Amino acid sequence: MGLILIRVSPRKPKKGETVKLSIVVRHPMEPGTRRDDEGKLIPAKYINELEVTQNGERVALVKPSRGVSANPLFAFKIKAEPGEITVTYKDTAGESGKKVYKLKVAE
Amino acid sequence: MGLILIRVSPRKPKKGETVKLSIVVRHPMEPGTRRDDEGKLIPAKYINELEVTQNGERVALVKPSRGVSANPLFAFKIKAEPGEITVTYKDTAGESGKKVYKLKVAE
Repeated sequence: MGLILIRVSPRKPKKGETVKLSIVVRHPMEPGTRRDDEGKLIPAKYINELEVTQNGERVALVKPSRGVSANPLFAFKIKAEPGEITVTYKDTAGESGKKVYKLKVAE
Repeated sequence: MGLILIRVSPRKPKKGETVKLSIVVRHPMEPGTRRDDEGKLIPAKYINELEVTQNGERVALVKPSRGVSANPLFAFKIKAEPGEITVTYKDTAGESGKKVYKLKVAE
């Protein structure tokens, strides 16, 4: 749980080219309304904050709700700049995760 | 400007099925750092808030920055429920937009 997958398409863009940034987090996104096999409520545990930065500047802050599905996908279009894309998230149970993607651009 | 395109994939999901919700807003996302042909700075005008609701409940609130490209794409995975998906946005120039998508599910 908590694994962050980051994909940039195209993979080797030119500098300044618009690229699609796709982020998937392996996370159960438990809404707090489901019951286990014994009928007990499974406690809520979902990502309620996800931040994407590019070379230290925020690209977007996302506040998902319990309505977002397990292993959530987030996608944006950004301009390719050489450097680092960083994704961090927090969930309602206090867990967090971080992943850095090093973006290389064609000259 | 301001046209909101909403796509759900698959288009006719079963109730409760995980679907991909893709949102594109036709918007210049002017970062405020570009210059026009006469060398004057083009004022910033970018979407800084976008909200997605499903049958009145918030799916996600997104706070994009000037780092997000023109005609921004936002994508999420949600569970298909019959009813309405509503997307609203505001930009830094005070403009806003809204679009309602009626989702039908297969029985």
